[in-house]
Amino acid sequence: MPDFINTLDRDGLEAHGITGWSYGFFDQVRFSEIDALAHVNNVVYLQWFETARVRYIQAFGMTAYGPEDPQIVVRHQTADYLAPMYMEEIYVIAARTRLLKATSLIMEYGVFREGEMVAKGDAVCISLEQDGKTRRAHYPAAVEKILEIDAPEQA
Amino acid sequence: MPDFINTLDRDGLEAHGITGWSYGFFDQVRFSEIDALAHVNNVVYLQWFETARVRYIQAFGMTAYGPEDPQIVVRHQTADYLAPMYMEEIYVIAARTRLLKATSLIMEYGVFREGEMVAKGDAVCISLEQDGKTRRAHYPAAVEKILEIDAPEQA
Amino acid sequence: MPDFINTLDRDGLEAHGITGWSYGFFDQVRFSEIDALAHVNNVVYLQWFETARVRYIQAFGMTAYGPEDPQIVVRHQTADYLAPMYMEEIYVIAARTRLLKATSLIMEYGVFREGEMVAKGDAVCISLEQDGKTRRAHYPAAVEKILEIDAPEQA
Amino acid sequence: MPDFINTLDRDGLEAHGITGWSYGFFDQVRFSEIDALAHVNNVVYLQWFETARVRYIQAFGMTAYGPEDPQIVVRHQTADYLAPMYMEEIYVIAARTRLLKATSLIMEYGVFREGEMVAKGDAVCISLEQDGKTRRAHYPAAVEKILEIDAPEQA
Repeated sequence: MPDFINTLDRDGLEAHGITGWSYGFFDQVRFSEIDALAHVNNVVYLQWFETARVRYIQAFGMTAYGPEDPQIVVRHQTADYLAPMYMEEIYVIAARTRLLKATSLIMEYGVFREGEMVAKGDAVCISLEQDGKTRRAHYPAAVEKILEIDAPEQA
Repeated sequence: MPDFINTLDRDGLEAHGITGWSYGFFDQVRFSEIDALAHVNNVVYLQWFETARVRYIQAFGMTAYGPEDPQIVVRHQTADYLAPMYMEEIYVIAARTRLLKATSLIMEYGVFREGEMVAKGDAVCISLEQDGKTRRAHYPAAVEKILEIDAPEQA
Repeated sequence: MPDFINTLDRDGLEAHGITGWSYGFFDQVRFSEIDALAHVNNVVYLQWFETARVRYIQAFGMTAYGPEDPQIVVRHQTADYLAPMYMEEIYVIAARTRLLKATSLIMEYGVFREGEMVAKGDAVCISLEQDGKTRRAHYPAAVEKILEIDAPEQA
Repeated sequence: MPDFINTLDRDGLEAHGITGWSYGFFDQVRFSEIDALAHVNNVVYLQWFETARVRYIQAFGMTAYGPEDPQIVVRHQTADYLAPMYMEEIYVIAARTRLLKATSLIMEYGVFREGEMVAKGDAVCISLEQDGKTRRAHYPAAVEKILEIDAPEQA
């Protein structure tokens, strides 16, 4: 598993005033993420969700993006924009699993500025073989870790 | 209103085997839209939805992005990925209004490859004054045009 | 070879007032390409150059991005910004080979608005085996076509 | 001036084995920055240069992106790719001024992985009034700071 920068665990998130989440990191709005309306473009949040998802699934061992690993792909996602964000703002993004099934999961994402949620989203993710078609069960060790840190609904 | 390239109206869409939509355009997957998994990245579809939305709201007169115009911002959006897309594929994206309210609307987007829908999404959009806060009624001429072409639910 | 949309050959480019180029296409500025300064972001032009390069090298048979094909990678590139560009503007991008060597080439790109060049750039590209390291000679048929349409310097 | 995360000064850069630079920061390759060839896309480096430039010019007071501030725009830029970069790699990007003139400057950028330079670039930047046309002298305090930390050539 790669090392990730600026990572926050449950305690680190609580220190930022964020409760109910166990995995996240902090980052900062870049110039390229601001659009012609002078705030963070709505599509950019989905890229942040992606970064959070990719870190989360590696951190808890769902995939290492190797040639033998499952492909975790997105089938459906949503985003809610609660307040605009501006250039150079520092934010925390947190990720958790809400529902864990044998070959899929539903994740949730929250974006926080000074402890206040400014955007959120979720994603239905499917675990596939490298053929990109056949369903594949999660690694048991990953399931165990996610149950432990996020206590998702199971089905 | 600017001219848009590759535009398709109801007849043009039907010629591509797409029925039930009145506004769209065709485009082609670029190298930069392909990700490490060798298909179109899931975030890119939201950028396509954005391009379709921006063209649609200008084409039907909701805003011209001028200093006196409403700002049409997204509050919520979703995306569904029905089939992967690959490099250089030519696709049609279509947009329509499903619900039209005094100061908001819900739009739908469909991405089609050879007449088959491969992705879809929707977006809840709010019309605001230039202050980015105060709600603002749609231009009556835009309402009229959208009612005519898309016959959305009204509320 | 895939079909490409909106392609312009030497005659098509001349009809747009652009001489000295044999391959290009037209496109239109998208909302997502405009930055906080309200014009096309300077990085976006490099993405346009990439799209032009990827189309050009497929159109003239240098690679089809298949598992047996050469990888054409960029070692050095430049961009010159001659005039700002704005939302929804329609532009032509043209590409040509200035220098063709056994396992590399130098390409040039021009962006034109109403026949006037508004940006340009070039790229030093290297042809590699799939290992991403070993130099690989161009396909002879591609060399022949490029010599014919662009008459580049050879070395 | 905003606070920036993960900033490195001359001492911090030297601790990473990087000498001759006085301003930089560390970051990590994201999934969205990897392209179909499985390495960091060549255009992404230019976005990194942009982020470094925007941080640098704010950190040393050339602009705060306010309505009374100069617009610092890019007229020419280059990039050199010395070694490919891969997913999740942690890197340092450093920025410095090579030449400082009354209403322009030439900046240089370096990307380092474990102390080794893997990419570099430069940019010719012009200082303009908010009209985007008229040349404007740099703030004297910014000139003073840049002379002090980077000792650029002057002209």
